[in-house]
Amino acid sequence: MTLVSIIGTGNMGQAIAGLVTKGGHQAQTIGHDDDSAVDGELVVLAVPYPALSAIADARRDELAGKVVVDITNPLDFQTFDSLVVPPDASAAAELAAALPQSRVLKAFNTNFAATLASGQVGDQTTTVLVAGDDADAKALLLQVVTDAGLRGVDAGSLRRARELEALGFVQLTLAAGEKIAWTGGFTLAP
Amino acid sequence: MTLVSIIGTGNMGQAIAGLVTKGGHQAQTIGHDDDSAVDGELVVLAVPYPALSAIADARRDELAGKVVVDITNPLDFQTFDSLVVPPDASAAAELAAALPQSRVLKAFNTNFAATLASGQVGDQTTTVLVAGDDADAKALLLQVVTDAGLRGVDAGSLRRARELEALGFVQLTLAAGEKIAWTGGFTLAP
Repeated sequence: MTLVSIIGTGNMGQAIAGLVTKGGHQAQTIGHDDDSAVDGELVVLAVPYPALSAIADARRDELAGKVVVDITNPLDFQTFDSLVVPPDASAAAELAAALPQSRVLKAFNTNFAATLASGQVGDQTTTVLVAGDDADAKALLLQVVTDAGLRGVDAGSLRRARELEALGFVQLTLAAGEKIAWTGGFTLAP
Repeated sequence: MTLVSIIGTGNMGQAIAGLVTKGGHQAQTIGHDDDSAVDGELVVLAVPYPALSAIADARRDELAGKVVVDITNPLDFQTFDSLVVPPDASAAAELAAALPQSRVLKAFNTNFAATLASGQVGDQTTTVLVAGDDADAKALLLQVVTDAGLRGVDAGSLRRARELEALGFVQLTLAAGEKIAWTGGFTLAP
């Protein structure tokens, strides 16, 4: 059993906590501004992109040695027309640079909360794409995902976070533009 | 009925020609190095990324006024670890700059040839994502796609080509890494 600490109690944090417990693992939820200690070896930062750097600064030592999951879509939500990270960067790469002692993964940013809660995108099983440089860290998260009945796919190294953030970006623009519902989105057929 | 000229007779060119005729439209296929005149108002450049600039140079005047579709994934196929276009660019944006009198669309780069031929990704209807700045041009292509029984989705302005190329990139790495089959890949649930 893995203890997963989730910082952030919004829609995504709640959906991820539900997924964790559905699979028989244990979830610790911590409010975004709460300074409770993080107990899990797997820590999901279920917060918006602008909140990442303050959390990294405040919890750098505490997160050392842990697996830290970045779920953000660093979108300019004023325009829905660009990301706010530099074009050759990603939110996950920035977080990894800010947390050099942690093993950072990118995951869940291509999933809407409703599809994590239901395990379905339309009538398909929800796929969680995970990118990161540490194989053991990815295996730990993928196990939690698959134990909940979702499909987990290793999308490659942390360099692929840039492409996952592009995918999340397109999916958000499609939902905001009402081309898809917030219960729909991308699925991946094997 | 739309006459669609397809330059390139590889797997993708053949699959797109099949899609065009399946929907009751007419396809003209032209070999990559063939200098036959392009008759269609809709022209699909079904060639690899490195071939685009020579075609644009050779056919700039001929393609003026036409809708030109870029289907490329400008991937470094040696490493499968980066794109060969600058991070703030896209193959489609480069093509649009090279063909200033044409209406350039990005499409089909997120579809494997087999899924265009069958109309299915796994057991789901194949979705063709189309990006471009000209609404009439997008409507023309989307009609051809939907007449063939596939799902066509307007993914936004040509700026979104960058994200579609990221999506194509991830999908190619997943197939090359045997995480998905060449008959699988991303689908989009409404």
